[in-house]
Amino acid sequence: MTAVHDPTAARDTDAALLAGRYGSVPGTTPEVTDVIRQQLAHRSVRSFRTDPVSDAAVEAVVAAAQSAPTSSNLQTWSVVVVRDPDLKDRLAALSGDQEFIRQAPVFLVWLVDFARIAQLADRRGHGLEGADYVESALVGFVDVSLAAQNASLAAESLGLGTVFVGAARNNPEELAAELRLPGRVVAAFGLAVGYPAESDTSRVKPRLPQVAVVHHDRYQEHTQLPAVDEYERTIGAFYEGEGLAHSWIERVLARFGTVAGLNGRDRIGEALRNRGFDLR
Amino acid sequence: MTAVHDPTAARDTDAALLAGRYGSVPGTTPEVTDVIRQQLAHRSVRSFRTDPVSDAAVEAVVAAAQSAPTSSNLQTWSVVVVRDPDLKDRLAALSGDQEFIRQAPVFLVWLVDFARIAQLADRRGHGLEGADYVESALVGFVDVSLAAQNASLAAESLGLGTVFVGAARNNPEELAAELRLPGRVVAAFGLAVGYPAESDTSRVKPRLPQVAVVHHDRYQEHTQLPAVDEYERTIGAFYEGEGLAHSWIERVLARFGTVAGLNGRDRIGEALRNRGFDLR
Repeated sequence: MTAVHDPTAARDTDAALLAGRYGSVPGTTPEVTDVIRQQLAHRSVRSFRTDPVSDAAVEAVVAAAQSAPTSSNLQTWSVVVVRDPDLKDRLAALSGDQEFIRQAPVFLVWLVDFARIAQLADRRGHGLEGADYVESALVGFVDVSLAAQNASLAAESLGLGTVFVGAARNNPEELAAELRLPGRVVAAFGLAVGYPAESDTSRVKPRLPQVAVVHHDRYQEHTQLPAVDEYERTIGAFYEGEGLAHSWIERVLARFGTVAGLNGRDRIGEALRNRGFDLR
Repeated sequence: MTAVHDPTAARDTDAALLAGRYGSVPGTTPEVTDVIRQQLAHRSVRSFRTDPVSDAAVEAVVAAAQSAPTSSNLQTWSVVVVRDPDLKDRLAALSGDQEFIRQAPVFLVWLVDFARIAQLADRRGHGLEGADYVESALVGFVDVSLAAQNASLAAESLGLGTVFVGAARNNPEELAAELRLPGRVVAAFGLAVGYPAESDTSRVKPRLPQVAVVHHDRYQEHTQLPAVDEYERTIGAFYEGEGLAHSWIERVLARFGTVAGLNGRDRIGEALRNRGFDLR
């Protein structure tokens, strides 16, 4: 990230960043910092160089992750840094067989982790009944997500590219066996990390207009459909630029319209129970 | 955030930031950027000045949130910007009666939101069966968390202070009524935002040593208890500096040891179903 000192250049840069994020030049002028510039520039990278990621970079990324807030300082997460090519190959096969997982020099598997607390409870002869509720799983999923987002942004600030891999939830028990996860630990998602390939052409993807996702004091239902219809055109133009004829509306409905759209993840409730999360 | 140009000063600053985060000067030298410095400096702020937070700042914070990754670009979240003092007072009462929620000029309520997709499905006469599974709720909770962490860091980079409020899950149905949330929408957590009070003395809180939360290729169980025992001393010294005699181990076991430790959130599964998340 280069600091921008010329205020006119900064305004131009910010307008370009916001235009990339929303698909149009914004009418307003949000207050932007270097950190926010780094966030606005986020794009998912799925094509990596072979260059290794240093231990110093991984340590910084983990320190960033641990610096995220965590509910009551409970820290109910862990991360596995996977570099072993054979293991990465098997995790890729379990996670939608996505080639970029094999290609990335580092694949981070983010875990909801109550095993640490279970060890403490065992040592004290203490119960752990509260861990068996939906609430405790939510605390874990929220906290590991806050941590991983800090990690992803930290990696990007180091010049790395990343992409989240929800397909790490496709086969939770098999993935747990590969990583030798104890009970009360489950993978929330993966994060592939590496230096973007020179051939990488990924671009910033436009999001819904702010009017769709922001409400003031009370939820507004009537703003949704007009905003989504506007977005359908914005994202349609984006996909067209990639040579694709995609409809966001159709993609969303295909994902959630039927159980088939979940790609097997309709059994995640059962898998969580098998991993020691009772979801009472 | 001030750019640091003197490399010696930068090394000193980084060592101090890492010492704050881990309670001791690190033996290694992670690779640190200005973004990572901002992350390392995170502390939760619970005491705010009355100064308002500008619309331009809120827009920037939301743009940062929307720039976070989101599963398959589904964007299954929304946020309510609460500024109305009476409403904020009632939300505070529903969320553990925490005074800082009343004091903060802005209280952001982060929502897992499938109502937008439900409107699309209704208009097309399309089903939405896939939304009724645990997986879909997880997608929402993960994505709203990634977004909110970007928002929190963006706010900090603007000189604001923030604190996450998990107690926004204490009374999901009553909170939904206050915010007029439609079905298929539920609050994941709140985020109080404002300029830190001059009297604010919050400090960076040390986290578990990296050896406890980082695994290489396979999960390591035997590293946990020694690392936690080390941390018990580190965090004990931190609390002592605040005039408190707290044990992290006892606090963790008190939270998850019994159902009572969940402070009523043992009914979040039922509440989610009442809000339209079937958790199949």
